[in-house]
Amino acid sequence: MRSFISDLLLQQLAEPSSEAMYKRLYRHLTASIRSARIAPGQRLPSSRELAEELGIARNTVVSVYHQLLCEGFTESRVGNGTFVSEQQQDVYPASVLEQTDYRPGWLSAQLSERGNRIVEEAPASPSEWGAFMPGVPDVEQFPHATFSRLLRQAWRAPMPEMLSYSQGGGLKWLREELAAYLGIARSVQCDPDQIIITEGVHQAIDLVTRMLGSPQDVAWVEDPGYWGARTILAANGISTVPIPVDAHGMCIPPAASEPTPKFIFVTPSHQYPLGMVMSLDRRRRLIRLARHQGSWIIEDDYDSEFRFGGLPVPALQGLEPNAPVIYMGTFSKTMYPGLRLSYVVLPKVLASALKAAHTTLYREGRLLTQAAVAAFISEGHYTSHILRMRKAYAGRRRMLVSLIERRLGPGWLTPEADNAGLHLVVSLPETLPDTRLVELARSRGILTRSLSRYYHQAGAARQGLLLGYACVPEHQIIQQFEVLLDCIAQVMQDGASGAGRVTSASP
Amino acid sequence: MRSFISDLLLQQLAEPSSEAMYKRLYRHLTASIRSARIAPGQRLPSSRELAEELGIARNTVVSVYHQLLCEGFTESRVGNGTFVSEQQQDVYPASVLEQTDYRPGWLSAQLSERGNRIVEEAPASPSEWGAFMPGVPDVEQFPHATFSRLLRQAWRAPMPEMLSYSQGGGLKWLREELAAYLGIARSVQCDPDQIIITEGVHQAIDLVTRMLGSPQDVAWVEDPGYWGARTILAANGISTVPIPVDAHGMCIPPAASEPTPKFIFVTPSHQYPLGMVMSLDRRRRLIRLARHQGSWIIEDDYDSEFRFGGLPVPALQGLEPNAPVIYMGTFSKTMYPGLRLSYVVLPKVLASALKAAHTTLYREGRLLTQAAVAAFISEGHYTSHILRMRKAYAGRRRMLVSLIERRLGPGWLTPEADNAGLHLVVSLPETLPDTRLVELARSRGILTRSLSRYYHQAGAARQGLLLGYACVPEHQIIQQFEVLLDCIAQVMQDGASGAGRVTSASP
Repeated sequence: MRSFISDLLLQQLAEPSSEAMYKRLYRHLTASIRSARIAPGQRLPSSRELAEELGIARNTVVSVYHQLLCEGFTESRVGNGTFVSEQQQDVYPASVLEQTDYRPGWLSAQLSERGNRIVEEAPASPSEWGAFMPGVPDVEQFPHATFSRLLRQAWRAPMPEMLSYSQGGGLKWLREELAAYLGIARSVQCDPDQIIITEGVHQAIDLVTRMLGSPQDVAWVEDPGYWGARTILAANGISTVPIPVDAHGMCIPPAASEPTPKFIFVTPSHQYPLGMVMSLDRRRRLIRLARHQGSWIIEDDYDSEFRFGGLPVPALQGLEPNAPVIYMGTFSKTMYPGLRLSYVVLPKVLASALKAAHTTLYREGRLLTQAAVAAFISEGHYTSHILRMRKAYAGRRRMLVSLIERRLGPGWLTPEADNAGLHLVVSLPETLPDTRLVELARSRGILTRSLSRYYHQAGAARQGLLLGYACVPEHQIIQQFEVLLDCIAQVMQDGASGAGRVTSASP
Repeated sequence: MRSFISDLLLQQLAEPSSEAMYKRLYRHLTASIRSARIAPGQRLPSSRELAEELGIARNTVVSVYHQLLCEGFTESRVGNGTFVSEQQQDVYPASVLEQTDYRPGWLSAQLSERGNRIVEEAPASPSEWGAFMPGVPDVEQFPHATFSRLLRQAWRAPMPEMLSYSQGGGLKWLREELAAYLGIARSVQCDPDQIIITEGVHQAIDLVTRMLGSPQDVAWVEDPGYWGARTILAANGISTVPIPVDAHGMCIPPAASEPTPKFIFVTPSHQYPLGMVMSLDRRRRLIRLARHQGSWIIEDDYDSEFRFGGLPVPALQGLEPNAPVIYMGTFSKTMYPGLRLSYVVLPKVLASALKAAHTTLYREGRLLTQAAVAAFISEGHYTSHILRMRKAYAGRRRMLVSLIERRLGPGWLTPEADNAGLHLVVSLPETLPDTRLVELARSRGILTRSLSRYYHQAGAARQGLLLGYACVPEHQIIQQFEVLLDCIAQVMQDGASGAGRVTSASP
């Protein structure tokens, strides 16, 4: 006969969950002891019995029992078994809260399921600045003095409204400058009332997915794709369906595919991270599909200002009047990341509801900073800074490409990549694990990101490196590239001697 | 026999939901038509049949049918009934997305359930600055020139790391200054590593509740209490249990109450919005209860710097070493709201996980602004500005109190309120609806908030007005108070002539 405790646990464990079994078992047992559903003094089944009755590995039960013992939930009476302690410990004793590095088991039981996932996915990069850091522009070239002067100007006898809470999606002046700029530079069709200024693109994604998406809704995301979108979607309970990309961008599934996605995340102007452009035919089909099946396209236009050859690629948003496209862009790449200002362009019908929600969810402010940015655009500094950096990044990219071709040989550069952006992708032999290479490089002061980590489906993942070339000037790139070569050689050698599989240097 | 469509809908409507029936019916019908589960050409049951078979009001069905007809999902064939259109309309036709003010039915069907709730709860105030605006400090008195100089200083040849993305919970210098300040001014015990600088308190609440709370978890909140906490909790799927407050703060329920709350939101130093201080006995019991039952106390210490008499009230966080308290505070009231900088002080054991999550969820930056704030504190401007404003606000409060007593008579001021903060609460006769008064005042340029809107349980709600006195100087308060008196008189007269219930001017 099954014990009462096994019955209780079977019932609790019946709920579907993606959490690891030992976490769930720990959570349910401690909760039941705390609420006295499992009473003080009660004997627990032996680990063997419980494992059999629950149909789980005995080791799992053993390690959870050990944890309970350590934390004082249970006590062991020699030769007699394990009993729930009579004297209940505090769940949050001072001694636990004092720890800076308490047993991970305790902490992960405290974090919610989404919390654990967010922590696991947190990028481990120790810094956000240096050669090969992808997605970071050269902020040393930013016209500090000019922007500082504009800030000072904004601070000269400001109206009190400029320092208080604000609402309405940001300073009107900035939204006007932005609407004009986006129309010319990105072929985005909008008026200033469709724009909301956000604290970074994450906030824009958060706003849109919370307001339009419900838990259990589905979003299509490009595979590989931006980790940030995935994180925010997961935090809002929306599951992602990874859609492969090919040389023409996202491979759009047929109309009848189930479940119908509420959102379709795309980077049509410059696929992130691989760098291809979505073809015109795909763009038209995507809009038609979204219109028909009731999906919102979220266009993340994160670095399209930096295109070094060929025709400019206009935004998807402006391709058809009033398409179901929510367009996002940022000042992080064109000005500097620490500014924390981005923007979202909404279909007219959504604007007023999402503005009200934006004020309510995040509260707005920072109008003086926004005034300085508006002046920066209005006085022409913005466009001329972009032009100047476009030239600089084009040169750095050319140099890095020729370095790679000269020092590594042909076949290392991904063929799809367009001549644009702030980083390029180096393909690695499939036998060379990119995460190990990134770790080794990091230990030697080089920041890169592994391509495989951008894939949602582990099976589809290619090994590669994202090399940012925008951050620092040429001579530093040259220097650091030598260190990187060293790291590649070392990882290849380790692989060759370890597994004896790597025979060619070409991927 | 029930029709196939009724069966389908019965099944879909069986899921529990707090959404209004007409929204659910509309949503399920349009989704089924779109996915062709209800095929083109299919005849819908008559509104009478469907209402009977679903056991809902016929009017609901009639209005949903009308909406479907308007939007082209169905067509009516005279004398023969309603049929699903053969030619499927786009769900997002250009004509809809062009509208700035489309039928609310369409828009609310697009918004998620949480989205609809957020929009409904959005405060309708047209501006955030003016006499009687609660919670807004006098930003005209802020030392603009000093702060602007410190910003300029930070911008002088900044290190590139200061302009890039950042991580680790904010500028170390600022966290050090803050830890020292909080220790002295608020008796908060922490070291700088326990602090995360956030974009406003909403972000701090969002971070903590997402990371530690799961959907279906429960939070205790004070009733009345801060609307913002409720909004963020709801957005994260956490339900609130309103707990009444009395003259000693939150009336702490007994230990065994079910369900056990994951969070307990309190404003112990100055209850929001009523203004009482939580007694020492309650504080001790609250910490003991939280320790025992595994709840995190979230202490929102939003305006405790402004206390005009009596002893300072130390924070709950420092009452016992390593209590399960997460402390939040803000620069919005002590500097200016538009700065958008707040902070959260975490138990040591949570700090590193929540820092990683903070970077991942929101991405960090704004280090130059943080450097200017650190310098502002370090050079003593922060404390001296607070001292100066404390004096100013004390004077304005005194004056407003005497105005109320002189012009309205005794009994209008809430007795619980402590001599502190940026607003006071005027009680209204129960027959005088505060929301009407607020609307009337707003139409005449006076911004206040109605007390009843701060209550979670409509039944418990008291009628009253939150009058901010910090925003503007005395002569403006005096002027605007006359307008407010006019409004009160008018609403009372309307009530008396309309319902004949109000007989006395005293609440």
